[in-house]
Amino acid sequence: MATAQKSITINGVAVNELFSTIEAVKTTPSIAKFKFRIRNQWEDGSRNHSTVTTLSGANQELTHPVPFRLEADEPAILLGKDMAANPVEHLLHALASCLTTSMVFHASARGIQIHAIESSFEGNLDLHGFLNLDPTVRKGYQGIQVNFKISADVPDDRLQEVVQLGTSNSPVFDSLTNGVPVTVKASRL
Amino acid sequence: MATAQKSITINGVAVNELFSTIEAVKTTPSIAKFKFRIRNQWEDGSRNHSTVTTLSGANQELTHPVPFRLEADEPAILLGKDMAANPVEHLLHALASCLTTSMVFHASARGIQIHAIESSFEGNLDLHGFLNLDPTVRKGYQGIQVNFKISADVPDDRLQEVVQLGTSNSPVFDSLTNGVPVTVKASRL
Repeated sequence: MATAQKSITINGVAVNELFSTIEAVKTTPSIAKFKFRIRNQWEDGSRNHSTVTTLSGANQELTHPVPFRLEADEPAILLGKDMAANPVEHLLHALASCLTTSMVFHASARGIQIHAIESSFEGNLDLHGFLNLDPTVRKGYQGIQVNFKISADVPDDRLQEVVQLGTSNSPVFDSLTNGVPVTVKASRL
Repeated sequence: MATAQKSITINGVAVNELFSTIEAVKTTPSIAKFKFRIRNQWEDGSRNHSTVTTLSGANQELTHPVPFRLEADEPAILLGKDMAANPVEHLLHALASCLTTSMVFHASARGIQIHAIESSFEGNLDLHGFLNLDPTVRKGYQGIQVNFKISADVPDDRLQEVVQLGTSNSPVFDSLTNGVPVTVKASRL
Protein backbone atom coordinates (compact mmCIF):
# COMPACT_ATOMS: atom_id res chain seq x y z
CA MET A 1 0.00 0.00 0.00
CA ALA A 2 1.20 3.51 -0.81
CA THR A 3 3.87 5.01 1.39
CA ALA A 4 6.11 8.07 1.22
CA GLN A 5 9.27 5.99 1.86
CA LYS A 6 12.02 5.44 -0.67
CA SER A 7 11.39 2.16 -2.46
CA ILE A 8 13.60 -0.80 -1.50
CA THR A 9 13.08 -3.48 -4.12
CA ILE A 10 14.18 -7.12 -3.86
CA ASN A 11 13.21 -9.55 -6.66
CA GLY A 12 10.94 -6.83 -8.05
CA VAL A 13 9.02 -6.65 -4.76
CA ALA A 14 8.90 -3.29 -2.93
CA VAL A 15 9.73 -4.77 0.47
CA ASN A 16 9.41 -1.46 2.30
CA GLU A 17 5.79 -1.32 1.08
CA LEU A 18 5.31 -4.94 2.15
CA PHE A 19 6.50 -4.07 5.68
CA SER A 20 4.33 -0.91 5.66
CA THR A 21 1.34 -3.09 4.73
CA ILE A 22 2.06 -5.41 7.66
CA GLU A 23 2.22 -2.43 10.04
CA ALA A 24 -0.96 -0.94 8.54
CA VAL A 25 -2.83 -4.25 9.03
CA LYS A 26 -1.67 -4.40 12.66
CA THR A 27 -3.10 -0.90 13.24
CA THR A 28 -6.29 -1.34 11.16
CA PRO A 29 -7.15 -5.05 10.89
CA SER A 30 -10.13 -4.44 8.57
CA ILE A 31 -7.87 -3.43 5.66
CA ALA A 32 -6.75 -7.08 5.42
CA LYS A 33 -10.18 -8.19 4.21
CA PHE A 34 -10.29 -8.70 0.44
CA LYS A 35 -12.98 -9.82 -1.97
CA PHE A 36 -11.97 -11.09 -5.42
CA ARG A 37 -14.56 -11.39 -8.16
CA ILE A 38 -15.13 -12.55 -11.69
CA ARG A 39 -18.12 -12.75 -14.01
CA ASN A 40 -18.44 -15.64 -16.45
CA GLN A 41 -20.45 -15.94 -19.64
CA TRP A 42 -21.18 -19.13 -21.55
CA GLU A 43 -20.59 -18.85 -25.30
CA ASP A 44 -21.32 -22.25 -26.86
CA GLY A 45 -20.46 -25.88 -26.10
CA SER A 46 -17.26 -25.96 -24.05
CA ARG A 47 -16.47 -22.28 -24.64
CA ASN A 48 -16.98 -19.60 -22.03
CA HIS A 49 -15.03 -16.64 -20.70
CA SER A 50 -14.62 -14.71 -17.49
CA THR A 51 -14.15 -10.98 -17.00
CA VAL A 52 -12.14 -9.65 -14.06
CA THR A 53 -13.01 -6.03 -13.40
CA THR A 54 -13.21 -5.11 -9.71
CA LEU A 55 -12.05 -6.24 -6.29
CA SER A 56 -12.39 -4.86 -2.82
CA GLY A 57 -9.65 -4.58 -0.24
CA ALA A 58 -8.16 -2.13 2.26
CA ASN A 59 -11.71 -0.84 2.83
CA GLN A 60 -11.95 0.31 -0.80
CA GLU A 61 -13.65 -0.73 -4.00
CA LEU A 62 -10.91 -1.11 -6.61
CA THR A 63 -10.99 -1.43 -10.40
CA HIS A 64 -8.34 -3.05 -12.58
CA PRO A 65 -6.91 -0.56 -15.15
CA VAL A 66 -8.40 -2.74 -17.90
CA PRO A 67 -10.84 -5.64 -17.42
CA PHE A 68 -8.98 -8.93 -17.86
CA ARG A 69 -10.62 -11.51 -20.10
CA LEU A 70 -9.94 -15.19 -19.36
CA GLU A 71 -11.01 -17.78 -21.93
CA ALA A 72 -11.87 -21.45 -21.59
CA ASP A 73 -12.42 -24.29 -24.03
CA GLU A 74 -11.74 -28.03 -24.21
CA PRO A 75 -9.38 -29.94 -26.51
CA ALA A 76 -10.94 -31.79 -29.46
CA ILE A 77 -10.64 -35.12 -27.65
CA LEU A 78 -12.93 -33.67 -24.97
CA LEU A 79 -15.37 -32.39 -27.61
CA GLY A 80 -14.17 -28.79 -27.71
CA LYS A 81 -12.59 -26.59 -30.37
CA ASP A 82 -9.27 -26.22 -28.48
CA MET A 83 -9.30 -22.42 -28.66
CA ALA A 84 -8.14 -21.91 -25.05
CA ALA A 85 -6.86 -23.73 -21.99
CA ASN A 86 -9.49 -25.86 -20.27
CA PRO A 87 -10.76 -25.38 -16.70
CA VAL A 88 -8.46 -27.94 -15.07
CA GLU A 89 -5.45 -26.42 -16.88
CA HIS A 90 -6.51 -23.01 -15.55
CA LEU A 91 -6.59 -24.56 -12.08
CA LEU A 92 -2.94 -25.61 -12.50
CA HIS A 93 -2.07 -22.05 -13.58
CA ALA A 94 -3.81 -20.61 -10.50
CA LEU A 95 -1.74 -22.96 -8.32
CA ALA A 96 1.54 -22.33 -10.16
CA SER A 97 1.22 -18.56 -10.20
CA CYS A 98 0.25 -18.42 -6.52
CA LEU A 99 3.04 -20.70 -5.31
CA THR A 100 5.56 -18.68 -7.33
CA THR A 101 4.34 -15.26 -6.17
CA SER A 102 4.04 -16.39 -2.53
CA MET A 103 7.60 -17.75 -2.64
CA VAL A 104 8.95 -14.53 -4.20
CA PHE A 105 7.15 -12.21 -1.75
CA HIS A 106 8.17 -14.13 1.36
CA ALA A 107 11.75 -14.68 0.16
CA SER A 108 11.99 -10.95 -0.62
CA ALA A 109 10.80 -10.07 2.89
CA ARG A 110 13.69 -12.22 4.21
CA GLY A 111 16.21 -10.54 1.88
CA ILE A 112 16.77 -13.71 -0.19
CA GLN A 113 17.80 -12.86 -3.75
CA ILE A 114 16.14 -15.09 -6.38
CA HIS A 115 17.49 -15.24 -9.94
CA ALA A 116 15.05 -17.60 -11.66
CA ILE A 117 12.11 -19.88 -10.94
CA GLU A 118 10.71 -22.40 -13.40
CA SER A 119 8.13 -25.00 -12.55
CA SER A 120 6.05 -27.77 -14.09
CA PHE A 121 2.66 -28.99 -12.89
CA GLU A 122 0.86 -32.21 -13.80
CA GLY A 123 -2.54 -33.35 -12.57
CA ASN A 124 -4.16 -36.79 -12.95
CA LEU A 125 -7.82 -37.08 -13.76
CA ASP A 126 -9.89 -40.17 -14.55
CA LEU A 127 -13.00 -39.53 -16.70
CA HIS A 128 -14.82 -42.44 -15.05
CA GLY A 129 -15.71 -39.76 -12.47
CA PHE A 130 -17.01 -37.00 -14.76
CA LEU A 131 -18.87 -39.52 -16.95
CA ASN A 132 -20.54 -41.17 -13.92
CA LEU A 133 -19.18 -44.58 -14.92
CA ASP A 134 -17.67 -45.43 -11.52
CA PRO A 135 -18.95 -43.89 -8.26
CA THR A 136 -15.63 -44.74 -6.53
CA VAL A 137 -13.68 -42.47 -8.93
CA ARG A 138 -13.73 -38.80 -7.99
CA LYS A 139 -14.65 -36.09 -10.50
CA GLY A 140 -11.63 -33.93 -9.70
CA TYR A 141 -7.88 -34.32 -9.76
CA GLN A 142 -6.63 -37.45 -8.02
CA GLY A 143 -3.32 -35.73 -7.39
CA ILE A 144 -1.08 -32.93 -8.63
CA GLN A 145 2.71 -33.23 -8.97
CA VAL A 146 4.78 -30.06 -8.84
CA ASN A 147 8.42 -29.65 -9.79
CA PHE A 148 10.27 -26.41 -9.03
CA LYS A 149 13.70 -25.41 -10.39
CA ILE A 150 15.13 -22.45 -8.53
CA SER A 151 18.21 -20.30 -8.82
CA ALA A 152 18.67 -18.30 -5.60
CA ASP A 153 21.45 -17.00 -3.37
CA VAL A 154 21.02 -19.66 -0.70
CA PRO A 155 23.12 -22.72 0.14
CA ASP A 156 21.78 -26.09 -1.10
CA ASP A 157 20.40 -27.05 2.30
CA ARG A 158 18.19 -23.95 2.40
CA LEU A 159 16.60 -24.43 -1.04
CA GLN A 160 13.70 -26.51 0.33
CA GLU A 161 13.07 -23.75 2.87
CA VAL A 162 12.59 -21.26 0.00
CA VAL A 163 10.07 -23.58 -1.66
CA GLN A 164 8.28 -23.98 1.64
CA LEU A 165 7.80 -20.20 1.77
CA GLY A 166 5.53 -20.82 -1.22
CA THR A 167 3.64 -23.90 -0.03
CA SER A 168 3.15 -22.64 3.52
CA ASN A 169 1.85 -19.20 2.51
CA SER A 170 0.09 -19.58 -0.86
CA PRO A 171 -3.67 -18.85 -0.78
CA VAL A 172 -4.35 -21.14 -3.77
CA PHE A 173 -2.22 -23.99 -2.36
CA ASP A 174 -4.15 -23.76 0.92
CA SER A 175 -7.50 -23.48 -0.88
CA LEU A 176 -6.80 -26.44 -3.14
CA THR A 177 -5.16 -28.80 -0.65
CA ASN A 178 -7.52 -28.10 2.25
CA GLY A 179 -10.72 -27.27 0.38
CA VAL A 180 -12.99 -24.21 0.40
CA PRO A 181 -16.72 -23.98 1.17
CA VAL A 182 -18.54 -22.91 -2.01
CA THR A 183 -22.20 -21.82 -1.93
CA VAL A 184 -24.12 -21.83 -5.20
CA LYS A 185 -27.36 -19.97 -5.94
CA ALA A 186 -29.22 -19.96 -9.22
CA SER A 187 -32.16 -18.16 -10.75
CA ARG A 188 -33.74 -17.76 -14.14
CA LEU A 189 -32.09 -15.29 -16.51
CA MET B 1 -13.59 -38.90 -29.38
CA ALA B 2 -13.71 -39.24 -33.16
CA THR B 3 -16.56 -41.24 -34.62
CA ALA B 4 -17.96 -41.83 -38.11
CA GLN B 5 -21.52 -41.01 -36.99
CA LYS B 6 -23.48 -37.98 -38.14
CA SER B 7 -23.07 -35.21 -35.58
CA ILE B 8 -26.03 -34.49 -33.28
CA THR B 9 -25.31 -31.21 -31.55
CA ILE B 10 -27.15 -29.80 -28.52
CA ASN B 11 -25.91 -26.55 -26.95
CA GLY B 12 -22.83 -26.80 -29.17
CA VAL B 13 -21.98 -30.21 -27.70
CA ALA B 14 -21.73 -33.17 -30.11
CA VAL B 15 -23.80 -35.49 -27.92
CA ASN B 16 -23.38 -38.48 -30.22
CA GLU B 17 -19.61 -38.18 -29.66
CA LEU B 18 -20.21 -37.85 -25.92
CA PHE B 19 -22.18 -41.11 -25.92
CA SER B 20 -19.51 -42.75 -28.12
CA THR B 21 -16.89 -41.67 -25.58
CA ILE B 22 -18.89 -43.27 -22.76
CA GLU B 23 -19.14 -46.53 -24.73
CA ALA B 24 -15.44 -46.39 -25.60
CA VAL B 25 -14.49 -45.92 -21.92
CA LYS B 26 -16.68 -48.89 -20.95
CA THR B 27 -14.80 -51.05 -23.49
CA THR B 28 -11.31 -49.68 -22.82
CA PRO B 29 -11.18 -48.15 -19.32
CA SER B 30 -7.58 -46.91 -19.72
CA ILE B 31 -8.63 -44.23 -22.26
CA ALA B 32 -10.34 -42.37 -19.39
CA LYS B 33 -7.00 -41.54 -17.76
CA PHE B 34 -5.90 -37.98 -18.49
CA LYS B 35 -2.89 -35.91 -17.46
CA PHE B 36 -3.08 -32.13 -17.72
CA ARG B 37 0.09 -30.06 -17.58
CA ILE B 38 1.43 -26.54 -17.50
CA ARG B 39 4.88 -24.98 -17.19
CA ASN B 40 5.30 -21.73 -15.28
CA GLN B 41 8.07 -19.15 -15.45
CA TRP B 42 8.68 -16.34 -12.99
CA GLU B 43 9.31 -12.95 -14.62
CA ASP B 44 9.75 -10.38 -11.85
CA GLY B 45 8.00 -9.48 -8.60
CA SER B 46 4.40 -10.65 -8.81
CA ARG B 47 4.57 -11.38 -12.55
CA ASN B 48 4.80 -14.88 -13.96
CA HIS B 49 3.19 -16.83 -16.78
CA SER B 50 2.24 -20.39 -17.60
CA THR B 51 2.42 -22.19 -20.93
CA VAL B 52 -0.06 -24.94 -21.76
CA THR B 53 1.27 -27.12 -24.56
CA THR B 54 0.56 -30.83 -24.13
CA LEU B 55 -1.77 -33.22 -22.36
CA SER B 56 -2.20 -36.96 -22.37
CA GLY B 57 -5.45 -38.85 -22.59
CA ALA B 58 -7.09 -41.74 -24.42
CA ASN B 59 -3.67 -43.48 -24.38
CA GLN B 60 -2.17 -40.70 -26.52
CA GLU B 61 0.16 -37.76 -26.11
CA LEU B 62 -1.71 -34.71 -27.41
CA THR B 63 -0.58 -31.21 -28.32
CA HIS B 64 -2.73 -28.07 -28.33
CA PRO B 65 -2.81 -26.44 -31.82
CA VAL B 66 -1.05 -23.43 -30.32
CA PRO B 67 0.52 -23.22 -26.85
CA PHE B 68 -1.76 -21.18 -24.58
CA ARG B 69 -0.08 -18.48 -22.50
CA LEU B 70 -1.68 -17.59 -19.15
CA GLU B 71 -0.44 -14.51 -17.33
CA ALA B 72 -0.47 -13.54 -13.67
CA ASP B 73 0.20 -10.35 -11.75
CA GLU B 74 -1.13 -8.60 -8.64
CA PRO B 75 -3.05 -5.32 -8.35
CA ALA B 76 -1.09 -2.26 -7.18
CA ILE B 77 -2.56 -2.53 -3.67
CA LEU B 78 -0.93 -5.96 -3.44
CA LEU B 79 2.37 -4.57 -4.73
CA GLY B 80 2.01 -5.63 -8.36
CA LYS B 81 1.78 -3.77 -11.65
CA ASP B 82 -1.82 -4.95 -12.36
CA MET B 83 -0.98 -6.28 -15.84
CA ALA B 84 -3.02 -9.50 -15.47
CA ALA B 85 -5.50 -11.29 -13.22
CA ASN B 86 -3.97 -12.53 -9.98
CA PRO B 87 -3.74 -16.19 -8.89
CA VAL B 88 -6.88 -16.19 -6.73
CA GLU B 89 -8.85 -14.55 -9.57
CA HIS B 90 -7.57 -17.30 -11.90
CA LEU B 91 -8.83 -19.83 -9.36
CA LEU B 92 -12.33 -18.31 -9.63
CA HIS B 93 -12.11 -18.54 -13.44
CA ALA B 94 -11.11 -22.22 -13.22
CA LEU B 95 -14.14 -22.86 -11.02
CA ALA B 96 -16.55 -20.78 -13.15
CA SER B 97 -15.48 -22.27 -16.46
CA CYS B 98 -15.62 -25.83 -15.11
CA LEU B 99 -19.05 -25.47 -13.49
CA THR B 100 -20.41 -23.95 -16.70
CA THR B 101 -18.91 -26.56 -19.04
CA SER B 102 -19.94 -29.44 -16.77
CA MET B 103 -23.50 -28.10 -16.62
CA VAL B 104 -23.66 -27.67 -20.42
CA PHE B 105 -22.23 -31.14 -21.19
CA HIS B 106 -24.50 -33.01 -18.76
CA ALA B 107 -27.59 -30.99 -19.72
CA SER B 108 -26.85 -31.68 -23.39
CA ALA B 109 -26.59 -35.42 -22.69
CA ARG B 110 -30.10 -35.19 -21.19
CA GLY B 111 -31.41 -33.22 -24.19
CA ILE B 112 -31.99 -30.03 -22.17
CA GLN B 113 -31.73 -26.94 -24.39
CA ILE B 114 -29.85 -24.06 -22.76
CA HIS B 115 -30.08 -20.53 -24.15
CA ALA B 116 -27.79 -18.55 -21.87
CA ILE B 117 -25.69 -18.91 -18.72
CA GLU B 118 -24.17 -15.99 -16.84
CA SER B 119 -22.53 -16.28 -13.45
CA SER B 120 -20.69 -14.24 -10.85
CA PHE B 121 -18.14 -15.52 -8.37
CA GLU B 122 -16.83 -13.81 -5.23
CA GLY B 123 -14.24 -15.14 -2.80
CA ASN B 124 -13.31 -13.79 0.64
CA LEU B 125 -9.71 -13.69 1.72
CA ASP B 126 -8.16 -12.19 4.86
CA LEU B 127 -4.50 -11.14 4.50
CA HIS B 128 -3.86 -11.86 8.20
CA GLY B 129 -3.24 -15.37 6.89
CA PHE B 130 -0.81 -14.66 4.04
CA LEU B 131 1.08 -12.09 6.15
CA ASN B 132 1.41 -14.51 9.10
CA LEU B 133 -0.25 -12.01 11.45
CA ASP B 134 -2.83 -14.43 12.87
CA PRO B 135 -2.31 -18.22 12.92
CA THR B 136 -6.09 -18.77 13.25
CA VAL B 137 -6.74 -17.11 9.86
CA ARG B 138 -6.23 -19.40 6.87
CA LYS B 139 -4.09 -18.37 3.91
CA GLY B 140 -6.71 -19.33 1.32
CA TYR B 141 -10.28 -18.37 0.55
CA GLN B 142 -12.59 -18.47 3.55
CA GLY B 143 -15.52 -19.04 1.24
CA ILE B 144 -16.68 -18.56 -2.34
CA GLN B 145 -20.18 -17.38 -3.30
CA VAL B 146 -21.51 -18.31 -6.72
CA ASN B 147 -24.55 -16.89 -8.47
CA PHE B 148 -25.86 -18.45 -11.69
CA LYS B 149 -28.46 -16.93 -14.03
CA ILE B 150 -29.74 -19.46 -16.53
CA SER B 151 -32.10 -19.42 -19.46
CA ALA B 152 -33.09 -22.99 -20.36
CA ASP B 153 -36.08 -24.94 -21.62
CA VAL B 154 -36.99 -26.39 -18.23
CA PRO B 155 -39.81 -25.54 -15.83
CA ASP B 156 -38.88 -23.40 -12.82
CA ASP B 157 -38.80 -26.36 -10.45
CA ARG B 158 -36.14 -28.11 -12.54
CA LEU B 159 -33.73 -25.14 -12.76
CA GLN B 160 -31.86 -26.14 -9.58
CA GLU B 161 -31.45 -29.62 -11.07
CA VAL B 162 -29.65 -28.12 -14.08
CA VAL B 163 -27.27 -26.23 -11.79
CA GLN B 164 -26.66 -29.40 -9.83
CA LEU B 165 -25.50 -31.08 -13.05
CA GLY B 166 -22.60 -28.60 -12.78
CA THR B 167 -21.82 -28.86 -9.08
CA SER B 168 -22.16 -32.64 -8.91
CA ASN B 169 -19.94 -33.32 -11.96
CA SER B 170 -17.39 -30.49 -12.18
CA PRO B 171 -13.77 -31.62 -11.72
CA VAL B 172 -12.70 -28.19 -10.42
CA PHE B 173 -15.68 -27.92 -8.03
CA ASP B 174 -14.80 -31.34 -6.60
CA SER B 175 -11.07 -30.50 -6.46
CA LEU B 176 -11.66 -27.17 -4.73
CA THR B 177 -14.39 -28.16 -2.28
CA ASN B 178 -12.91 -31.52 -1.27
CA GLY B 179 -9.20 -30.80 -1.68
CA VAL B 180 -6.48 -32.45 -3.76
CA PRO B 181 -3.18 -33.99 -2.61
CA VAL B 182 -0.32 -31.92 -4.07
CA THR B 183 3.30 -33.14 -3.95
CA VAL B 184 6.06 -30.58 -4.41
CA LYS B 185 9.67 -31.29 -5.36
CA ALA B 186 12.39 -28.72 -5.88
CA SER B 187 15.93 -28.64 -7.13
CA ARG B 188 18.50 -26.05 -8.11
CA LEU B 189 18.17 -24.56 -11.60
